Amino acid sequence: MASLKGKDILHGNQFSKKDVEAIMKVASAFEKELKKKGSFSLLKGKLLATLFFEPSTRTRLSFEAAMQRLGGGVISMGSVESSSVAKGETLVDTTRTVSQYADVIVLRHPRTWSAREAADATPVPVINAGDGAGQHPTQALLDVYTISKELGTLKNLTVSLVGDLKHGRTVHALVEVLSLFRAKLYFVSPGLLRMPEEITANLKEKGIKIIETEDMMEAANASDLVYMTRVQKERFADLSEYERVKGSLIIDGGFLKSLKKKITILHPFPRVDEIHPDVDTYPGAAYFRQIRNGVFIRMALLAMIFGKR
Amino acid sequence: MASLKGKDILHGNQFSKKDVEAIMKVASAFEKELKKKGSFSLLKGKLLATLFFEPSTRTRLSFEAAMQRLGGGVISMGSVESSSVAKGETLVDTTRTVSQYADVIVLRHPRTWSAREAADATPVPVINAGDGAGQHPTQALLDVYTISKELGTLKNLTVSLVGDLKHGRTVHALVEVLSLFRAKLYFVSPGLLRMPEEITANLKEKGIKIIETEDMMEAANASDLVYMTRVQKERFADLSEYERVKGSLIIDGGFLKSLKKKITILHPFPRVDEIHPDVDTYPGAAYFRQIRNGVFIRMALLAMIFGKR
Amino acid sequence: MASLKGKDILHGNQFSKKDVEAIMKVASAFEKELKKKGSFSLLKGKLLATLFFEPSTRTRLSFEAAMQRLGGGVISMGSVESSSVAKGETLVDTTRTVSQYADVIVLRHPRTWSAREAADATPVPVINAGDGAGQHPTQALLDVYTISKELGTLKNLTVSLVGDLKHGRTVHALVEVLSLFRAKLYFVSPGLLRMPEEITANLKEKGIKIIETEDMMEAANASDLVYMTRVQKERFADLSEYERVKGSLIIDGGFLKSLKKKITILHPFPRVDEIHPDVDTYPGAAYFRQIRNGVFIRMALLAMIFGKR
Repeated sequence: MASLKGKDILHGNQFSKKDVEAIMKVASAFEKELKKKGSFSLLKGKLLATLFFEPSTRTRLSFEAAMQRLGGGVISMGSVESSSVAKGETLVDTTRTVSQYADVIVLRHPRTWSAREAADATPVPVINAGDGAGQHPTQALLDVYTISKELGTLKNLTVSLVGDLKHGRTVHALVEVLSLFRAKLYFVSPGLLRMPEEITANLKEKGIKIIETEDMMEAANASDLVYMTRVQKERFADLSEYERVKGSLIIDGGFLKSLKKKITILHPFPRVDEIHPDVDTYPGAAYFRQIRNGVFIRMALLAMIFGKR
Repeated sequence: MASLKGKDILHGNQFSKKDVEAIMKVASAFEKELKKKGSFSLLKGKLLATLFFEPSTRTRLSFEAAMQRLGGGVISMGSVESSSVAKGETLVDTTRTVSQYADVIVLRHPRTWSAREAADATPVPVINAGDGAGQHPTQALLDVYTISKELGTLKNLTVSLVGDLKHGRTVHALVEVLSLFRAKLYFVSPGLLRMPEEITANLKEKGIKIIETEDMMEAANASDLVYMTRVQKERFADLSEYERVKGSLIIDGGFLKSLKKKITILHPFPRVDEIHPDVDTYPGAAYFRQIRNGVFIRMALLAMIFGKR
Repeated sequence: MASLKGKDILHGNQFSKKDVEAIMKVASAFEKELKKKGSFSLLKGKLLATLFFEPSTRTRLSFEAAMQRLGGGVISMGSVESSSVAKGETLVDTTRTVSQYADVIVLRHPRTWSAREAADATPVPVINAGDGAGQHPTQALLDVYTISKELGTLKNLTVSLVGDLKHGRTVHALVEVLSLFRAKLYFVSPGLLRMPEEITANLKEKGIKIIETEDMMEAANASDLVYMTRVQKERFADLSEYERVKGSLIIDGGFLKSLKKKITILHPFPRVDEIHPDVDTYPGAAYFRQIRNGVFIRMALLAMIFGKR
């Protein structure tokens, strides 16, 4: 694979199939070694900075844990309100400033393409941890790592992506990576929240088989795995439409009983109502293992960016 | 004592007298060694997560300092506004998520019993750092550690607890622990803010002698130690009643002069008006030493939870 | 020089010329060693606490990076809203509390003299990271370190200070330090925002040559270095006056073309409009290098405070 040393991580499409396999292999090795050794000092003396311009628990803490598990240190901008952003500083100035302190920057920002803009302006590697409705590549990598571990393979899979496919940067990045492994895809969403045309067209051009539907049961029964996402109220002008849609995109005990087969369920979290807590004990409910896998994938990426794997 | 390895710390009543003595012994050893050695690497590679759903300086920083003094690392949720809680995530989901990243979780939450709920849902130990009007067990332990150091013993003491005894989780946890050492207790509070009946009844059943009064001078003159707490304006419908009450529950230079004996004064902090800064130079004013003792008690608890003491 | 071991860093005037030279020498050594070694364990086991009562990215992260580059740990109060300050705690109580946890405290607070007040109340060293319109001594030190590196000397320089000289704690601290090296100073500001009379008088008494003007071009053409600062809208009762003033205190491509000589440009950042991004590629634009120098100066100060240099 092309080395990740000194590279930015910006977009799901920057990885070849070989890249993804190499990253997953490193993640898997870290997962095993961490259980045995407890900690590493691979990145001793290195500093990671987290710049989150949007609320987050999972992604920020996952990176901060990964960095510390590798022996590195962390500095964190904290909330936007308590930073110089409140004084009107531009994203480029903030990122360039922080690049004087840290050896790698993890950025979440509400504007699409903001991560690339920041990366272009700074001498240290920038990792995109979500840029508006754009991309979230490390989430896509931890998702395929989880799929690979849960199902034992990435070959010949059928995957349903459910919920807000229009604004969901997580699914935008995930389909890029899944397409490398020739997965067949069900896109399950209300008409208002369909996958953006350019993404669908691009996948079809690569020869990926795509079925678009509003019927989650049909899709799930044809799939190995269902990837749920949140449908946000704010996206709907007509609230009765929201209620109708929301009710049809929920996995609960009843849904599981009606299913004709065992499936694996993932979710990028946080969930609100779309997966009922009763589902948590279902053997295929893999979303907490998915969260844990995020640490190993990010350990792999950080180690590779610093040329240590 | 029962080992604390892998255990949650949830409630003042979970400790036997022997447990408390063992924890204090470990804290005392850490206090001495820290002066000599400067730092430890006992918990190298371990991560502690702080999840504070209410404002705090003292308790959070005290845990983060304790963990780092032991060589461990810290990840912190930051303010509620900047986390996924803002997206409507449940406490159980947040805690289970964070348990995928960290080896121990310190939780403060406004709802009574929330710490137990979180602990039941997560595979890693949870430490209750205050659950609404419920409990604050590590504060109780640092309080008795301080009492033991300041007075040289925990036997046959008379202790006055002053202020808002109704909502004060600190005093709720403290009386559980003090009762193990058969302390005689004065409860000094306005009628509106009396110690909850079930707590008082429970203590009396154990044979603890309790005197309830509104006269702080009488109580102080009969006590070895006065434990002050804040009386919050918000608790009063009638503001003139608040002013009357507040004025009678203040320690200042005049109060100290009128006292017939030397006493030791503790306060869980922050204070507002209930202890005048003039009192800070009084030899019995032990509240800053009390704050420092919190680090040693938390070092002891963390080391024991990880089976390192 | 007088040793900095155990000392507070409060005011630009506390350093002699020899002190400044010694600090810069240590900073320079750290800068070189860091490139080679990557990290230090000089301050292993030590804890630094950051208490920022005002928004900041740069200064807080710079100190946290410096401490970690030296092998030490960090605890941070976080935003005022999420701390006990929200419960009405005084600055002295907060600082004394935190001094029970940490070995050194870095404080930013909106009130002039607050850092001295805090330092007087606490047993551990306090570093003033900005106290209202007062001082910001570590910024002054990193500024002269940058000037010295960019211009190769601190002798016989002419320096223009531009913008809000009335409220700018950065320039207040900087002129104290520059006066040690007998720099000739241009003060370029609108009448409303002139350098406070007592500072100007004090400098003149020391024999420092000062020219006050509103003409930035004239000043720049006579200077080796221009130190820009922000002019804040809030300072003006008359907004049309603000617009006039702001427009005349901007460095952009046009300004650089009209200049008769090469100059060095510094800015304490964040900038808003006063330096156009086009200027960033001008060889004399040293403000991002200036930010990086802050880490080395703070490493030097921390190492010296702990008696390790």
